[in-house]
Amino acid sequence: MTIECGTSRITGCQFTLFPMSDDFAEVILSTLEKVDMSKVWKSTDDVTTCIRGKRVHIFDVTKALFLHAAKTGKHVAMSGTYSIGCPGDSSADVYMDESNELMNESSSEAVQQQAGCKFSLYPLGEEDYMEKIYQQIDWSKTTEVSVSHAHYATRLDGDVHDIFRVLQQSFEQVQNVVSHVTMTFTISANSPSNQKEQEQ
Amino acid sequence: MTIECGTSRITGCQFTLFPMSDDFAEVILSTLEKVDMSKVWKSTDDVTTCIRGKRVHIFDVTKALFLHAAKTGKHVAMSGTYSIGCPGDSSADVYMDESNELMNESSSEAVQQQAGCKFSLYPLGEEDYMEKIYQQIDWSKTTEVSVSHAHYATRLDGDVHDIFRVLQQSFEQVQNVVSHVTMTFTISANSPSNQKEQEQ
Repeated sequence: MTIECGTSRITGCQFTLFPMSDDFAEVILSTLEKVDMSKVWKSTDDVTTCIRGKRVHIFDVTKALFLHAAKTGKHVAMSGTYSIGCPGDSSADVYMDESNELMNESSSEAVQQQAGCKFSLYPLGEEDYMEKIYQQIDWSKTTEVSVSHAHYATRLDGDVHDIFRVLQQSFEQVQNVVSHVTMTFTISANSPSNQKEQEQ
Repeated sequence: MTIECGTSRITGCQFTLFPMSDDFAEVILSTLEKVDMSKVWKSTDDVTTCIRGKRVHIFDVTKALFLHAAKTGKHVAMSGTYSIGCPGDSSADVYMDESNELMNESSSEAVQQQAGCKFSLYPLGEEDYMEKIYQQIDWSKTTEVSVSHAHYATRLDGDVHDIFRVLQQSFEQVQNVVSHVTMTFTISANSPSNQKEQEQ
């Protein structure tokens, strides 16, 4: 299947940042102040935030939000779904004219943070979707992050920059061959729990 | 497509409970004490918890966890993905022999709580998946909850019992006709933000 304009299709992410602290509102507000969201369309309510625009900016903004929140040292998590090619999507096309220059990469680079992340890819409308998922899991094992299997998801552990690089590239590679793709993720930093899995 | 054993297929949910408070660990632990998880397989690490078993118990347990955490009056959210029919799933079949008697419904019934929820259905491996999604959105509008459109998701507002009833029934109806279905959700209670959507 060939997809026209593969590099300029509108991408979105519906996500929530969860600071596990009494001053969660301040953590979110101070994080928002540090992140430049001028190149994405944005809509926020009390459940999630949705941003839409060029893929590079969607990943730039979500990574920056998580990094600046985690930098507070508080236990923070972020959960959401990236989406591209949704037939029900309406356009916010003005943001597709923005340049590719990343607005947050330099401030993000200054933050070093370890995290754990679980993600799942959903290539839609295709019978051989499992094969495309397995290809990405195999590919992710060739990267800097530590990759492990979880039920219904793949777990990535490592530096947040590396984790988002794997997320972005996995999403990128699948949307090259499948029109409508979603990718869910939950990323967590500064958790007091150890990572040891506990099964009952 | 006909699915064998449609009522007894193993269902899973990978989720995280997020109490936005300094004592998040205590809120989670006290919630876990109140919820009977004896009829589901369970695995927890620092990013998510995964439960697997009969569909009725997966929804019974996730609803009870959210309700008992929200009952603390703190701002709490829960985010996760329900899954059924994943070809990569391995079985935890012992839990499929449990009876259908719900372990938490009576304690859940005692909790009245309003919430907002966004959810998305992903019927996999089928070309006409969008039609199946739209059918569920249309159906949800006939229920007690308030239904509104969000990018990449449907928003439900109302009583938590009603919201989980819509989630469970939507999932149920799609898995009757599609083998592999996932459904993502984020539900939030006691948020200090008003619900007014803010667009930039």
